[in-house]
Amino acid sequence: MMRQDLTRKHVDQLLRVMNFNVSSDGIGAGEHQSLERPFGLDHPERLFAWAGATASWPMRTDAGGSRGLDDYFTRDFARDIGVEIMGRNKFGPQRGPWNDHEWRGWWGEEPPFRTPVFVMTHHKRPSFTLSDTTFHFVDGDPATVLTRAREAAQGKDVRLGGGVTTIRQFLDADLVDTMHVAVSPVRLGSGLRLWDSPDELLDRFHLEVVPSPSGVTHHLFWRR
Amino acid sequence: MMRQDLTRKHVDQLLRVMNFNVSSDGIGAGEHQSLERPFGLDHPERLFAWAGATASWPMRTDAGGSRGLDDYFTRDFARDIGVEIMGRNKFGPQRGPWNDHEWRGWWGEEPPFRTPVFVMTHHKRPSFTLSDTTFHFVDGDPATVLTRAREAAQGKDVRLGGGVTTIRQFLDADLVDTMHVAVSPVRLGSGLRLWDSPDELLDRFHLEVVPSPSGVTHHLFWRR
Repeated sequence: MMRQDLTRKHVDQLLRVMNFNVSSDGIGAGEHQSLERPFGLDHPERLFAWAGATASWPMRTDAGGSRGLDDYFTRDFARDIGVEIMGRNKFGPQRGPWNDHEWRGWWGEEPPFRTPVFVMTHHKRPSFTLSDTTFHFVDGDPATVLTRAREAAQGKDVRLGGGVTTIRQFLDADLVDTMHVAVSPVRLGSGLRLWDSPDELLDRFHLEVVPSPSGVTHHLFWRR
Repeated sequence: MMRQDLTRKHVDQLLRVMNFNVSSDGIGAGEHQSLERPFGLDHPERLFAWAGATASWPMRTDAGGSRGLDDYFTRDFARDIGVEIMGRNKFGPQRGPWNDHEWRGWWGEEPPFRTPVFVMTHHKRPSFTLSDTTFHFVDGDPATVLTRAREAAQGKDVRLGGGVTTIRQFLDADLVDTMHVAVSPVRLGSGLRLWDSPDELLDRFHLEVVPSPSGVTHHLFWRR
């Protein structure tokens, strides 16, 4: 057995999708986001209530919460992550040029990311820092943005935070290494669709499907 | 919403049992350990092969491994852990006074713990360090040892590493906060028994039972 540093991964820095929520028909957001409806959905909590119920949910402000299966997913959020990449539509409801520089994301003065965050946009905007999260605004195709993100992650993995359109772009470019999607038992009918069926990805990924007592079904993908 | 440091837990330092393996009849080790049979079992791999198959198994020395459900349990091994407590029978096959000071555990020159480890024993022995793990030999009842371990953990949680007898002692003293036990689909008949049935613990713990595609059934306990 060769001496190895067991704290190091034996693979390159992964690109990981984590705790991404879709409906039973594969929809992760409505088509019309707004300040009042960040997900463009009338009842977004039907998609992500499972996460908020766990002890390790990053936005939790009170004690308590469950420590069962679902908590293993929320507690993994920050583990070995050095950067998050997100689409502009996750960052906020504005489209086009940044007319409103006052907008600094949905997450208040203490965003849960606590690493650099790369917001993908064609429109320039200066970086800014809130607590220990710094938002950078980057233009480029997925592969280019990922290269920059890996450099900034200092050996750690990169989280791909969504939304749906951004994840689809990185899947289409075959850049995603692992993906956790929580499928909720609610049918939305229309909106931005991650997939028609998770089986679409089986040519490139292993898939485990794990029902949770909370009602969501965790879908765990990793590269073949 | 009060400003809070979201990197801090909202509860005290937990005592966590993690990745502990038993048979379908609740047996975690044979009655007669030896150098050749660390678990006192003819085929211990029938209990813990699921863990070794995962990408994040702490003793892994080669690349690869699965990144499905089971990997969420092995990757949680080091997260926010500041100290491990183990029974003497996990540390090695010797009993009674430490006649053989050459014995430094089963784990070679790079033990996977990477924190202080408190080995419970009535027999004094000097501490020693291997790589970034330091073994201390401590005498005392479970509550006393846990108090010392929490002090040494510097705000982090404490892992209770086993074996069966040690976990039983801490359960009987009502000191365990969370417990993950992987139950393998093999019946052993005799040996050291963690429980007759996991239902024995339901008066004090929530329990989620999660079957894995690997064949083991994860049992997740957390305090009511």
